[in-house]
Formats: sequence, structure tokens, C-alpha cells
Amino acid sequence: MVKITFPDGSVREYEQGVTGLQIAESISPALARDVVSCGINGETTELNRPINEDATIALYKFDDEEGKHTFWHTSAHLLAEALQELYPGIQFGFGPAIENGFFYDVMPPEGKMISENDFSKIEEKMKELAKKNEPVVRREVSKADAIKEFEADGQKYKVEHIQQDLADGTITTYTQGNFTDLCRGPHLMSTGAIKAIKITSVAGAFWRGDAKREQMTRIYGITFPKKKMLDEYLVMLEEAKKRDHRKIGKEMELFMFSDRVGKGLPIWLPKGTQLRLRLQELLRSVLKPYNYQEVITPGIGSKNLYVTSGHYAHYGKDAFQPIHTPEEDEEYMLKPMNCPHHCEVYARKPRSYKDLPLRIAEFGTVFRYEKSGELHGLTRVRTFTQDDAHIFVRPDQVKAEFETIIDIILKVFRIFGFDNYDAQISLRDPKDTEKYIGSDEIWQESEDAIRQACKEKGLNAHEETGEAAFYGPKLDFMVKDAIGRKWQLGTIQVDYNLPERFKLEYTAEDNSKKTPVMIHRAPFGSLERFTAVLIEHTAGHFPLWLTPDQVAILPISEKYNDYAKEVKSYFDTQDVRAYIDDRNEKIGRKIRDNELKRVPYMIVVGEKEAADKLVSMRKQGGGEQATMPMTEFAQRIKDEVAEQLKEINA
Amino acid sequence: MVKITFPDGSVREYEQGVTGLQIAESISPALARDVVSCGINGETTELNRPINEDATIALYKFDDEEGKHTFWHTSAHLLAEALQELYPGIQFGFGPAIENGFFYDVMPPEGKMISENDFSKIEEKMKELAKKNEPVVRREVSKADAIKEFEADGQKYKVEHIQQDLADGTITTYTQGNFTDLCRGPHLMSTGAIKAIKITSVAGAFWRGDAKREQMTRIYGITFPKKKMLDEYLVMLEEAKKRDHRKIGKEMELFMFSDRVGKGLPIWLPKGTQLRLRLQELLRSVLKPYNYQEVITPGIGSKNLYVTSGHYAHYGKDAFQPIHTPEEDEEYMLKPMNCPHHCEVYARKPRSYKDLPLRIAEFGTVFRYEKSGELHGLTRVRTFTQDDAHIFVRPDQVKAEFETIIDIILKVFRIFGFDNYDAQISLRDPKDTEKYIGSDEIWQESEDAIRQACKEKGLNAHEETGEAAFYGPKLDFMVKDAIGRKWQLGTIQVDYNLPERFKLEYTAEDNSKKTPVMIHRAPFGSLERFTAVLIEHTAGHFPLWLTPDQVAILPISEKYNDYAKEVKSYFDTQDVRAYIDDRNEKIGRKIRDNELKRVPYMIVVGEKEAADKLVSMRKQGGGEQATMPMTEFAQRIKDEVAEQLKEINA
Repeated sequence: MVKITFPDGSVREYEQGVTGLQIAESISPALARDVVSCGINGETTELNRPINEDATIALYKFDDEEGKHTFWHTSAHLLAEALQELYPGIQFGFGPAIENGFFYDVMPPEGKMISENDFSKIEEKMKELAKKNEPVVRREVSKADAIKEFEADGQKYKVEHIQQDLADGTITTYTQGNFTDLCRGPHLMSTGAIKAIKITSVAGAFWRGDAKREQMTRIYGITFPKKKMLDEYLVMLEEAKKRDHRKIGKEMELFMFSDRVGKGLPIWLPKGTQLRLRLQELLRSVLKPYNYQEVITPGIGSKNLYVTSGHYAHYGKDAFQPIHTPEEDEEYMLKPMNCPHHCEVYARKPRSYKDLPLRIAEFGTVFRYEKSGELHGLTRVRTFTQDDAHIFVRPDQVKAEFETIIDIILKVFRIFGFDNYDAQISLRDPKDTEKYIGSDEIWQESEDAIRQACKEKGLNAHEETGEAAFYGPKLDFMVKDAIGRKWQLGTIQVDYNLPERFKLEYTAEDNSKKTPVMIHRAPFGSLERFTAVLIEHTAGHFPLWLTPDQVAILPISEKYNDYAKEVKSYFDTQDVRAYIDDRNEKIGRKIRDNELKRVPYMIVVGEKEAADKLVSMRKQGGGEQATMPMTEFAQRIKDEVAEQLKEINA
Repeated sequence: MVKITFPDGSVREYEQGVTGLQIAESISPALARDVVSCGINGETTELNRPINEDATIALYKFDDEEGKHTFWHTSAHLLAEALQELYPGIQFGFGPAIENGFFYDVMPPEGKMISENDFSKIEEKMKELAKKNEPVVRREVSKADAIKEFEADGQKYKVEHIQQDLADGTITTYTQGNFTDLCRGPHLMSTGAIKAIKITSVAGAFWRGDAKREQMTRIYGITFPKKKMLDEYLVMLEEAKKRDHRKIGKEMELFMFSDRVGKGLPIWLPKGTQLRLRLQELLRSVLKPYNYQEVITPGIGSKNLYVTSGHYAHYGKDAFQPIHTPEEDEEYMLKPMNCPHHCEVYARKPRSYKDLPLRIAEFGTVFRYEKSGELHGLTRVRTFTQDDAHIFVRPDQVKAEFETIIDIILKVFRIFGFDNYDAQISLRDPKDTEKYIGSDEIWQESEDAIRQACKEKGLNAHEETGEAAFYGPKLDFMVKDAIGRKWQLGTIQVDYNLPERFKLEYTAEDNSKKTPVMIHRAPFGSLERFTAVLIEHTAGHFPLWLTPDQVAILPISEKYNDYAKEVKSYFDTQDVRAYIDDRNEKIGRKIRDNELKRVPYMIVVGEKEAADKLVSMRKQGGGEQATMPMTEFAQRIKDEVAEQLKEINA
């Protein structure tokens, strides 16, 4: 018999050799039907793997991340199997599961091309194969045999991969039907669970991501265990396309990119700048009760600074390269992080235990050298501004400080309507303590402090062992947006490393010198990323207090431009943000165009309005319409904003 | 006879061969006594040079920049003459006039050193020589003869300079007494006018500024035609030392530098950041009526961008070197200017004549590679943030736009109490039009527009021919601070070059495509420089609305810390900016320390105050003292700030 421990701590006994599927069956038939893979002692594996010793088990359904991963991994193999039948002689590169589905990199046979036109054919073939419900069979082979086998199939990329990347010894392969892939798994037990299939896109991709190697064809797809789930996904995808912040950013003139300026270097246009400054002001007001001290540090630092901090050793080669100053033989780097600068601010004068916590905040602009292929709108850029802070605390202050930061982050989520969020505590791996710096005691203390802080704040955080950085545990927040997509926002991170490297200290109550603990935190993450998420969450319909333009004034014809200007001047005095669309266009066209700009209110002005100092208002989205004195309308806007700000400051 | 034209346009006739001195004598004996040198056809020269053709003349007194330059240049020779007598065998490098006085780089004879202890000896010798009133005699010699002469004197640096830097042909030397120097002049006619002499400092300096060459001794001095002027200068120097923004910046904890971060890279500390943000907000409010559009652009740009703009060719070699990204073989540069980025913003969509002027503003952070020896506090740094804007106008809008910018700049000067300022219009040299881009017509138009704008704004601007940049004329402002020092602040610059290089255009009323004119402008220049000037102008006593901390709360002993906190909490609700000095120090010490912090108000709280919710106020600088309810005090602060802001917004 073996003892099996479940996630809730309960223990059951089973016969030696029991499988994950049998365990699921012993619990309920429904679970046995839905289970996709399992975690044995923390490692995801197939449901038919026999368990011969006492172990912990987690049973994964498609809804779990691990389950999705298994499901899509097998789906990638199914795609490959279909392609092999459709395009004999096709060669395969890598084919992983990804965040939303899977892809396979392939080299079609000479003279063939795979394009969107082939998607339905591929989908049909995959469905046909899935219906056969072929078992996925795991085999262990020697490296030499694996090479022989894939050479015989003419799979030269697989052979190169085995030869160059894999250590000598046993290699695993997975076979379903006539298709065998080199793979570490895990996989579904058979392909029949894959009920709904969509090939989503095709793109070029270099073999091994190396621009000097062959360009392969990357085919993306996604699959589900139920047709309804695919339908919902496709609707979400359609909605996501409409909410794409790159598209809306252009329509609302929030930001731009210029190839001449450089890839991944965002330019905040006037309306985007207004939005960003308002976000910064909001954050300043949220931080006000917490005694943060804002600083401004330079965008570069000497290479030495990052050698001291360790960032150079860690990121140096992948970062923007150092800038050499020939005359004085110095080297500078674009700032990849604000922390070293803030350590220097801490170190500028002696600190006492009474001075802690010392909270140093900065809207700090940093630079990261991302590959151009990975750049994406405002979510993946080469320069961005973090809403950063570094808090220097005594070890006994970690818990209280986490509590205030959780308050701050949850307040920000509430303000922007992110009501749906997860929190994750990343802990160190207690079996591998060598990897981490700081004593066992201090880790234990901090991990407990974070747990306790989450508890007191009613935060139902799940824990991930082994996910901590080498320098300390952390707490991360994921929000779900209006259409159910998850975004990582907000992070709180303990750091024992930098205070030591910078030899920071404070005088303790007993007059001894002690090393402070540092906490990194960023509620938004970065202004770029947060703005992108906010656009996708709101589809560009920002709350009235935040939106760059609150009102578009649309004169019916040129004759009423003067009255439009009068209205605008009055609004200026009332701090109502308005612009005039005085283009020589029909009023219907103006209304349509300004809908696209997501201005919350449009007001139309013509003869009647000009005569009586009225405005005819239309709410964005074809909602409410009404005619009223311009003074009343301005008051209405001011009241609405005041109401929103009151809620924010509540 | 020759016709001599004076600066006011009047013309007089003199006999051929007349000298500047004779012309001065013909006007008044007082002028003849005070005149130091003269400008003949725009070139500064000696007073005894005969004039043989019709010419323009300007007569320079010590008060004129040109006069000072001549006076101090001769003084440098006088210093050298004295050193030659005191240190036989001494060798001379360069000895120019500078902004405040002059220096001479010398190599003392083997085994000798010149230090502060020798200053009075040198001064005495200079005075003794000056009393002789030796004539300064100009000679023209061949290059070969000059080399022979200086070789005979053992002046190897002079010989090297002649050999390496000077073209073949005639060379001029100047001799007074036993001292002869290689020199282009001009000089005083004799040394007797130098009445008051001060050797101010001594420092090391490499020959030719090259760290690989010999280190010489640089001796600084200053001289005046009257003793009283020297006395006033020394008082000013003493006052300037007290106002040194580097010293005050440290005392008030406004900014810091860290060698580990890098030389010349300022870190704005919390109080400095508050000050800076308040300055930015002020400027935003000043700009509000003028329809500026603020953007935020990245801190780097591709090298290509600066090749397009021409900045790379101009500054590339002396700037921070490009950053290479090895993987994608791109080159980026730290942004030396914001204009190319703003051109890209202009170019992002078609522009019509109706869209102009288009005013793009940015608090734009730029980087310049200054030599470390030239760095100085916040006035000479390697990164700084310009209060920049680029305004794209039609050629016919230049005048009106200059008028609004003059308004903005003068408003800023008024707000900060810079009541004393000069303006200079820099024009192109009409004799050398090849050097400049843009048609004669457009130059004429713009120069007239600037002149007219100055006139309409009552600005008594002087004109400097040949001082324009190659790309357009400009208007610069110099302010005099509280102790009479001049600082360059505020610039407005026309640019025909960048719009052409970036192929910018707008659709004119007749539907043709035209090129806009660009205007650069910065009222502060940079936030760093402006803050430095403001500190030196106010000696750190910022106006109440601006100062980071308005009130220091000083509890008499620990017993009253709680009441101090209560007062602070109340002030927080009233937006009165206060901090508590709760150090365990005597109250006298606290008062002294907080005087150094230049906090406008200190309030002392003890038993009586705590009992009746009072505060005992002391105005900074040992002024007014009074005891009052804390609510009344807060109201007083708010009233004072409101009054100041009312004046600002007037």
C-alpha cells in the first residue's frame, strides 16, 4: 500500500502501482471524466503513471493551468500528426503549449506553403484523428537510438536538437498513431478528449529563434474539451481585438511609435500624456497618507553601480550595452532598475532605527533590451516608467509594511474596477536553501510575515514553493479584466541582497549596526503596462475624472464655430476638458468620428443653441440625449467628476 | 579725412590716421580717461591703432564686456611679467582673460612651487610694475623669428604652440617692460590703468587640457581700474560663497551626487523633488492659456534619428557614445536634444495651415557628455531636464509667437523676482550668408519679426551680428541675480533646418505643401540650472508657495512630541507643509539647525502650547515672534500662500 496525500492535507491509502486516473475514479466518476493530468510530488505527469511510493497528488482539470498545459501540449502533437499526413516529408522543429493554446514550428516540404487557406483542412484532419482516440504512448530510448530513429524519418531539426542540447542518457518520446515526437511530456492518455479545434494563425519564425538560421512556419492553434468553450473563446478573441490597446491608442491619439525614433520606444502623445500625468497624480494622492518620499534619479548609472548591485552580472549581456566615454574612459549603462540609485539615497547619511521604515518612491524610467520580435504595444517596450518604491525596514516591520502596501494595491484595483484578482505568495524551495541568500530564520520570518499580512487583509493568496527570487519572497497580484483575461499587475518583493551589497545599515536601539530589509513594490507595475491594461479593460472608455477629453464640441456648421469657442472658453474656466471639432464635415460624420475617440460627452451646437446659450448633449455610445444651458451642463460634468473623486478618496 | 560712424548712427569726420583715443578725446576728457579699447568695424582693437579708412567705431569702457576683456587680458600679461621677475626661468603656457578676471598657466622653475602663501608677494610685484605705467607695444614678426625669440627665452610651450597651431606668416607679440608675449591682443595702451589687483586662487591644469601632458600651475586673478570696485567684488565673492547652490543644496537636502552613480548625474532628494515638481506645475499653469500640448518622449533614440537631424554629425564625437545592441545590430543614443522626437510627433499625421501654431512641450530629459573637470553642481551636469517646447508655425506667425513667448519668459522672471535682465537678438552675418541655411528673404523676415516683437513688448534688446546659429536667429535672456551676477536664462530660437531635414510640411490655404518654421524655446533653460540660479538668487529662501517645507515644528522636549504630531496632522489636513524635528537636542540647537534649512517658519511647542493648542512661531532669520492658536497659524500660512499665488496668476 502507498499513502497518498491530497492538497487539502487529507491522506488515503491505495495499492502500490495505483495511477492518477484510478485515484480520480476512487473519488468520483465526474472527476475521472474531467481530469487531464496530475501532479505527483509537485511534478506534473500523465494519469497512467503508476505510483509506487508514498506521494502527494494534485488532480488537474482543464480549468487548471497545469491541465491546460497538458491538454495543449498533446494538441500540438495532434497538429503535427495531422500535418504529417497532409504534407508528407514535412519537418518539425519545436511545438510547445503556450499561454493560450500551442504552436508548432515546421518546415513544409519543398515547394509547399502553409497559409490561412489551409486552416480548415488542418482542423478537419485533426478532428478526424482525435475521433480515433489514439492512446499517447510514452517510451524511453537511448540518445543514440533516438538520433537513429529521427534520422530515419528525415527529421533533421529533431536530430540537431538531440545532438546539441540533450545530455547523454535516456530520452523520452511520445507516440500517437503514426506520429512520434521527442518530448518530455506530460500528455493526455489519449487524443479523444480534444473535441474543439481552431487553428488561429500562421507566422514566420527562425529555427531556434536565431535570425541566422532557416525561417520556419509557425502554426498557432487552440483546442478545448468542449465546443462551447471554443465558441466563448472566439467571442472573447473578437472582443479582445476590438479592445486591442494598440488600435484604441491610435484612435484616441494616446501614444505612438516611430521607427525613426526606435522600436519599442513609446512616445506619449498630448492626450496620453494628460492621462499618464493624471494617473501619476492619483498615485501620489493614494500614497500621501503613507509618508512616501519621492525622488528623481538619473536615467543612467555607472557600470560600477550595477556591478555593485549584481545587475550587471545578471542582465549585463542581454541589456543595452554600456556606453563608453572615450575621453575619461568611463562606462555608463541605461538604468535597468531604480533600486541601486535608491540604495545610494539611503546611504547618503546615517540612519537610525527611528527613521525606518524609509520609503523612497520614484516614477522611475528604466530601459530593457527586449528582442524586437517580442515587443508589443505598451505591454512590452524597451523603455518604461515604473511606479516604483523601495522601502527600507527593520526585519520586525515587514508584516506591517506588507499590510500597508496591500492596502495601496487593493485601493488602486478598486479605483479602476479590477474587482477580480488573485494573489500569489512565492516562497523559497526549502529543499534547496543553498540557492537563496539570507538566513533560514529571516526567510521563515518574512514568509510568515507575508502570510499573516495577507490573512489580516482578507487576501486569499495561494502559495507557490520555489517561486521566490534568490534574494527574497514576494507577493504578486493578477487581475482579471472585463473580458476575463488575466494580467499581472502589482508586486511586492522582499530583498535581503541589495542592502548587503550596498553595505546599508542603521543604528539599532541598542546602538549596534544592523542591515535593513528592502521591499520593492509597484502597484501599477509600469505606467505603460498599466495604461495598456486599463485600455483593454475599459475598451478606452475611461472614467470621466481620468479621460483626457471629457467633451467634444461639434458645431453643426462653420457658422457656429464662434459659439463653439465661447462654450469652450467657458468650459476652460470651469476646468471642464473639451475640444472643438471644427472640421468642415457633416454633423453625422463628426458624431461617428468622435464616438471612436471615446469622448464621454458630445455636445452639438447650432442655431437654437447659440441663440439661447444652450448645448445639446449626447452621451457616448448613443445613450442619453438632452438640451440644457451650457452652465448647467458644465455643472453636471463637475458634479459627476466630484462624485467619482469622492468615491476614490473614500 | 575719414568718416567715422558711431553706434547711434551719427557720423563725424577725422583726419586719416586718427586713433580711438583721439576720437574719445574729441568727445570728452572723461570718456578719454575711461576708455579701455575700441571696436573698429566690429573688431576689438587697441586705442592707439591708426584708422586710415572710413569705419564704424565703438568706444569700450571697463563696464563693457569688451573693455573688461581687454583690461583683464593685459592684466594676465602683467601677472606673467611679475612672475618672470619673481621666478626667473619660469615657463609660460596660455594666459587668457576669462569671465571674471584672468589666469595664466605656468611651469615654475625646477624645485619651486607657487601656493596661496605667495599671492600677496605676487600682488605687490604686479602693483609695483603697474605703477611704472609701462606702454604695451605691439610688434609683427615672422613665424621663424618668433620661434627663435621664444626659444632663446627657453619658452618651450610658446615654441610648441607656434609650431603646431599657428599658420605661416605674420605673428604678433606684445611687450611691456622686460616681458614679451605671443598674443593676438588687443591690450591696454599701458599698464598704469590697472589699479586694484587680487590673485584669487591657484590650481593644477594640464598643458593644452590634455591629461597625458605636463601638469602646470594655473594662477587666477582679477583686477579693476578702481580700488572700490575690487572691494565690492570681494564682498560679492564672499556673499556668492554663502549662496553657493552646492552648499545650500546640501544643507537643505535638495539634491545629491554619488560617485557610484556617476559624476555630474544629479539625484533630486525628496525636498528637491517637491521643489522641482512645484516648478513644473507652475510652468504648466503659466503655459495653460497658450495651448501647449505636453508630450513624453523616450530618453534614447536611434542613431539614425540623429543622423537625420544632423545632431550626430555635429555632436556625435563629443557626446555619450552610441549604445550598440549586438543581437539586432542597432545603435541608440542617449537623447542630446528633444527636437528630433518632437519633429516625429509633428510628422505623425497631415497638418493644415489651420493647425498652426502647433506647440509641443515636454519636460524633456537630455544627456550631454561634459568633461568631468567642467562639471559644477546643478549648473553643469551630464543629464538635465529642459522645460522645452517646439512650436511649428507658418512664416507669417513668427512675430506673434515671439510675442507670446516673451510674455511667458517675462512672467517667469517676474514670478521669481528677476527684475533685472538683458535681452540679446543674435543675427546672422550678412557678409557671410553662405554659412547659413534658409533664403535671404526668410532671414530678413524673421529677424524683423523678432525685432518687432521685442519692440511691442517694450524689450530693449541689443543686437549681435554674426551670433545667430547657422539654422536661424535667436533671442536670449540674461538675468542679474540679487548680488549682481549674470546668468543666461531663457532662450527663443528660430530653426529652418530641422523642418527641412525631417521633410515636415503643412497644407497651405491654397492647397500647396509648405515647410513650417520651428521655434525652440525654454523659459527656465533646464530645471537643474534654474534651480541652481534660484538658490543663488534667493540664498535658499524660497517663496512660501514654493519652498519644500513651510514650517518646522520643534518640540521643547520629548514630552511634547505627541502634541507636535497633533499639530502636524492638523497642518496636513490644511495642506500646510510641515515636519517635526524630534531629535533629542536642546531647543536652541534645534532652532540653529533649522535656520540652516531655510524653513520660513519655525514653531516651538512646549507645555503652554500643548495645554491650549497654541504654537509659538518664529519667522526665519530671527524675525517676528508670536504665539497663537494652531488654527490661526495654519490660516496665516494659507493666506500668505494664497496672496503669493494671486500675484503670480495676476
